[in-house]
Amino acid sequence: MTNRPGSDEGAPGSDVRALATGVVAGDRLALARAITLVESSRSADGRRAADLLDLVWSSRSGQSTRLAVTGTPGAGKSTMIEALGSELVAEGRKVAVLAVDPSSGRSGGSILGDKTRMTRLAAHPAAFVRPSPTSGHLGGVTGSTRAAIVLCEAAGYDTVIVETVGVGQSEVDVSTMTDIVLLLVLAGAGDEIQGVKRGILEVADVVVVNKIDATPDAAMDARGLYRSAMSLIGARHRQWHVPVLTGSALTGTGVDAILDAVSELNALLIDTGQKDAQRLLQRRLWFEQSVRDAMIKQFLSGAAHQAEQKRLAHSVDEGTRCPSSAAISLVTSLAVS
Amino acid sequence: MTNRPGSDEGAPGSDVRALATGVVAGDRLALARAITLVESSRSADGRRAADLLDLVWSSRSGQSTRLAVTGTPGAGKSTMIEALGSELVAEGRKVAVLAVDPSSGRSGGSILGDKTRMTRLAAHPAAFVRPSPTSGHLGGVTGSTRAAIVLCEAAGYDTVIVETVGVGQSEVDVSTMTDIVLLLVLAGAGDEIQGVKRGILEVADVVVVNKIDATPDAAMDARGLYRSAMSLIGARHRQWHVPVLTGSALTGTGVDAILDAVSELNALLIDTGQKDAQRLLQRRLWFEQSVRDAMIKQFLSGAAHQAEQKRLAHSVDEGTRCPSSAAISLVTSLAVS
Repeated sequence: MTNRPGSDEGAPGSDVRALATGVVAGDRLALARAITLVESSRSADGRRAADLLDLVWSSRSGQSTRLAVTGTPGAGKSTMIEALGSELVAEGRKVAVLAVDPSSGRSGGSILGDKTRMTRLAAHPAAFVRPSPTSGHLGGVTGSTRAAIVLCEAAGYDTVIVETVGVGQSEVDVSTMTDIVLLLVLAGAGDEIQGVKRGILEVADVVVVNKIDATPDAAMDARGLYRSAMSLIGARHRQWHVPVLTGSALTGTGVDAILDAVSELNALLIDTGQKDAQRLLQRRLWFEQSVRDAMIKQFLSGAAHQAEQKRLAHSVDEGTRCPSSAAISLVTSLAVS
Repeated sequence: MTNRPGSDEGAPGSDVRALATGVVAGDRLALARAITLVESSRSADGRRAADLLDLVWSSRSGQSTRLAVTGTPGAGKSTMIEALGSELVAEGRKVAVLAVDPSSGRSGGSILGDKTRMTRLAAHPAAFVRPSPTSGHLGGVTGSTRAAIVLCEAAGYDTVIVETVGVGQSEVDVSTMTDIVLLLVLAGAGDEIQGVKRGILEVADVVVVNKIDATPDAAMDARGLYRSAMSLIGARHRQWHVPVLTGSALTGTGVDAILDAVSELNALLIDTGQKDAQRLLQRRLWFEQSVRDAMIKQFLSGAAHQAEQKRLAHSVDEGTRCPSSAAISLVTSLAVS
């Protein structure tokens, strides 16, 4: 453990060691508490969260199939995830579900709120369902989610499904922490494709026109529309052609086809070495983002620094100050103080 | 000047003040030297660059029309920029052209190299043509380019054209420092649209199928293709429908229509307040990126820190260390040292 952070501050506390032991043993309560710790924004928890991640970090880290499920609000993500997850656990897989709610990072509130979700899947002994994280200190929502994924893998889950609520940047962010991005869309008029947030089509690996039970004809039109769109945009993975499927979590239609597409792509990514390469880039990105976040946190930990940062940010907003010189001024002032 | 950075380090040198005076007076040689200063990666130049930007920063900053011209290599960007710029100066505008070459930031080399470009436009007294920047210290290529834009505006140029060489992330980056993104594409088979880098279509405000003189029929097909693509992807600006035009810088075909579309969108952005809102977000982004870059620079200025960073980055690459805890470990070690 010579690499452990803060070895200058002694060994991790017994509570953290106990938590790590529980996580690795597959204790779901310990896993839930561990995720709460890495999501905590209390600075006192920062060190304990880092210690915990070091303790559970192992060769098992990064070995799961990481599936992102995204799409516009109302596209039926939760219901589809419950259908996919239930099928997977029935096949003997261990499935963890994490939700990324960008709003929770900004406003502190959660779009998903407290409404019970995926009750059937959550009740299964081989499944773990976790509501959306708060921003946390390990790099905002994405940092917390990356850490939560590692914890789920340490707990032995071989499939980690990350749900994004389909607003803002979250879809693109989630593509930097998962292997495969499943995009759920709804049938509608041609221009409704614009309802799909900017950038999502660029990272989608599998597209599903959902709720075909509701509007079968429109669903077929939408499938053709998305097929042409994806053929224009192209796939982000080599040797892969983005399939546009139809499905209905309600009737279970298409669930098998979706899982087949996912495992086909997963096999392709492994065989071509793209999965390892992608994981390497994702670890580097996580490290770089974490370094920046930790630096910002440390730099601005002092009240005087926060005041100076606020003052300069205000001058930048007002346009009275050149942003880059204001930044250099800020960092200089922090260094000399 | 109470806001000037490093007021704890005395007033800016007379050389910097003279340079600022020359820039504001519209001296092209002074402007060229000023841009070289903000592009410099010599840490000794960092403070002088910040002082210079503060001295020239004024109400004029941000008042120009900032046009990005992007597209795949060989799409004819330089020739089109020369045609557009020549038309603009003929109309009495003052035009500055900056090139963003992402490769120069990474490899130190430049795709554009030293070959003379836009000689006709460069020779015009109302035009200023600047080759691609090196990475610099103000936030890499994008930071240097943001600063160069401000310098051009301080020198009285009312139109700043930023050219990207059409590789990698530069197109998306350039959309965070300009008002309008003009995308040049070439006619070709349907799937050649995939040659357009991921994300470019998302930020394009005006699309031009270029070099129609070469392949008129294919150009018409391409125009239809891109029109459907853009109708699917949609415009990033409210109340704007992305036009897909055809042009030939060689014959001058379409140049007027392109400039009309640009000024139409520019007027829309101003009237709807989208230009001011966009500029505000761009200033904030510039500030945040600069703070992070300056912090990284300062944190890693010591040889010991660089060694620790390399060691931890290696462990992250190897997968032997959790990225977030490695980051916290790095920042902690720098703080206690």
